[in-house]
Amino acid sequence: MPAGSRKLLIIDDDSIVRHNVVAYLEDSGFDILEADEGAQGLDLFHSQHPDVVLTDLRMPTKDGLQVLEEVHQCSPDTPVIVMSGVGVIGDVVRALRLGASDFLIKPLVDMEVLVHAVNKSLERRDLLAQNQRYREELESANSELKDHLRTLERDQEAGRRVQQQLLPPSPFRRGAYCLEHKVIPSLFLSGDFIDLAFRSERFLSFYLTDVAGHGASSAFATIWLKHAAAEIVRDWSLFAEDSRVEEDFNRWLFEINRQLLETRLGSHMTCFVGVVDLELNRLHYAVAGHLPLPVMIHERKAQFLEGKGRPLGLFPNQEWPQFEADFPPGASLLIFSDGILEVMPPTDLLEKEEFLLKLLSNSQGGMKNVYDALQLDAIQEAPDDIAILSIVRET
Amino acid sequence: MPAGSRKLLIIDDDSIVRHNVVAYLEDSGFDILEADEGAQGLDLFHSQHPDVVLTDLRMPTKDGLQVLEEVHQCSPDTPVIVMSGVGVIGDVVRALRLGASDFLIKPLVDMEVLVHAVNKSLERRDLLAQNQRYREELESANSELKDHLRTLERDQEAGRRVQQQLLPPSPFRRGAYCLEHKVIPSLFLSGDFIDLAFRSERFLSFYLTDVAGHGASSAFATIWLKHAAAEIVRDWSLFAEDSRVEEDFNRWLFEINRQLLETRLGSHMTCFVGVVDLELNRLHYAVAGHLPLPVMIHERKAQFLEGKGRPLGLFPNQEWPQFEADFPPGASLLIFSDGILEVMPPTDLLEKEEFLLKLLSNSQGGMKNVYDALQLDAIQEAPDDIAILSIVRET
Repeated sequence: MPAGSRKLLIIDDDSIVRHNVVAYLEDSGFDILEADEGAQGLDLFHSQHPDVVLTDLRMPTKDGLQVLEEVHQCSPDTPVIVMSGVGVIGDVVRALRLGASDFLIKPLVDMEVLVHAVNKSLERRDLLAQNQRYREELESANSELKDHLRTLERDQEAGRRVQQQLLPPSPFRRGAYCLEHKVIPSLFLSGDFIDLAFRSERFLSFYLTDVAGHGASSAFATIWLKHAAAEIVRDWSLFAEDSRVEEDFNRWLFEINRQLLETRLGSHMTCFVGVVDLELNRLHYAVAGHLPLPVMIHERKAQFLEGKGRPLGLFPNQEWPQFEADFPPGASLLIFSDGILEVMPPTDLLEKEEFLLKLLSNSQGGMKNVYDALQLDAIQEAPDDIAILSIVRET
Repeated sequence: MPAGSRKLLIIDDDSIVRHNVVAYLEDSGFDILEADEGAQGLDLFHSQHPDVVLTDLRMPTKDGLQVLEEVHQCSPDTPVIVMSGVGVIGDVVRALRLGASDFLIKPLVDMEVLVHAVNKSLERRDLLAQNQRYREELESANSELKDHLRTLERDQEAGRRVQQQLLPPSPFRRGAYCLEHKVIPSLFLSGDFIDLAFRSERFLSFYLTDVAGHGASSAFATIWLKHAAAEIVRDWSLFAEDSRVEEDFNRWLFEINRQLLETRLGSHMTCFVGVVDLELNRLHYAVAGHLPLPVMIHERKAQFLEGKGRPLGLFPNQEWPQFEADFPPGASLLIFSDGILEVMPPTDLLEKEEFLLKLLSNSQGGMKNVYDALQLDAIQEAPDDIAILSIVRET
């Protein structure tokens, strides 16, 4: 605040001193009120609310200490500077004890000292007021933050329950195949999701998706995907008995990608989608940026499937090549979200994948064995959701 | 901070003054460093980092002003109090201009004045530091709040899009009946939702729900409801061709209520659910705390349906009575969420409902006419979502 807007009240019965002080402070840009004795000064104080009071200590009738006491009682934050003759330092000490913000010894040899005292008193008052404001704003911001966190927690909790509700039945059997899934939740709601893409007499299809990011919006994106995926199969009559699987595959991913970009959900996702031809026991699949690649375990040998393709929701007009693999009797296919890599001890990505493969080679496949092999029961709190989909051809 | 932990550096070549000052300040609980000339004082300053420096101004070799300048250059926040003889006020003024925090005139008649000066300087430094801390915390809290708001906005946006995606087709025709719906969104994501509960040859069923509260959790609750509602119909084989509608009704609401309480979604909701018997042209319905009651318009007469029942998700083991009404040819049934009442001009609830009825009496029913009658096109920003479901029996 510029000095000009500050109002000072000068109380001194010595008119020469008072006039000098007033003249100098007016020149320095302050608005000045003046009184030649305590009672009049206090009247001005009550009616004009000055920012600082300068008062002589020794005055007839009401003296400076009385002025100081009344001002402080009425407005504890208003600085009071006392002025005293050089011989009466005892008065000054009493005034300081009573809360005077500063003192000046008369005669005032240099008026700059006076202005310095006034400015310091104002600065202190301003600092205290600013502190108070900051503290209040901080309290209010913190309480708002707490509210937000409560809201986020409630949203998370609701999102988690709905995500759970939307997962397909597990285990789910169709012919010789058994599907099981499991999602190990992390503390923070995420976008891992598993579903059966569709069911027909001849084809059994499933996908595992991992929406980038966390929170309610990721959960909404998985819900969106579940419905969009089913609608696309219906609207385009995909995967009917006489379908050309490889074309339908691409159509399905193409449409999801197109709609995802169109809906502006602001999410992108990786996806592994597989279709088992129950007549020919062939696995058709496509990989939309999904990592790690699924693992096929057969006769105690674990291998990553090959395949690649871009994630969904980032690039328009993509195509997704279709890959195929045999699904021999007793084989087990395991699809993981990338959360699984975070609980593999090595730090390097390739080493993590090798480690995973090694652990799985020692298992016989199937959800239970994989759980044991990867010691997933021991995970207290996953850093990221871990979604696992297991498909076993039993005979 | 207690005075005892504050370190003061006293620099004065006058050993008597210095000893007096040191003795008094030590008695007052300060830790004291002392030097008898400027250079030594500055060495101590650099090595010991005192909280306050008290320096005489006139000293041989390095004087007090030089000490002041070097201290301020090196540590602008360290208060420097200068001491000066009574005759050399010009030195004091120079020191104040150079940033001395206070001054003392020697001889120091009362040491309490000295302690007061030290404490004031420390207080100012502490206030500045505290202000700085508050400001930083406030900035960080505000930036965190901004992040939260961005997250909430993103969640809202995603929730809104998914809610839209999950609405049933509109218009939707079945026999002589045409269903249309509309949701006028408010700024803040809400829990208004409309769906076809199930479709069978004989029955056409629909519901309109309003989840209490706002935000992502309300949207999740509507998604939960959509899936739970369909599952319950499937699991309990409700509303088959030979069903006893009134029993199925109660079972449906009973199960939704039970599961809603069980899932601990933390949401409760109102719901109007209706079933049109397409053979008998009868409307069966139940009211779960829903307000306003639906309006049947027939031959330019608008009437609220009768009915009552408790909301879902609050009380266990509830029953919902089934109500029935004729659905004559040309009649139009309108179901609103309570957001509609907020855009009715009267302030009183009953008057709002009467007002709504009066506006609707002048319309012929059907979504388009209702929109015109209620001037819903003019709504720029609804204070709450307004969901409207219209069912017209055309012949």
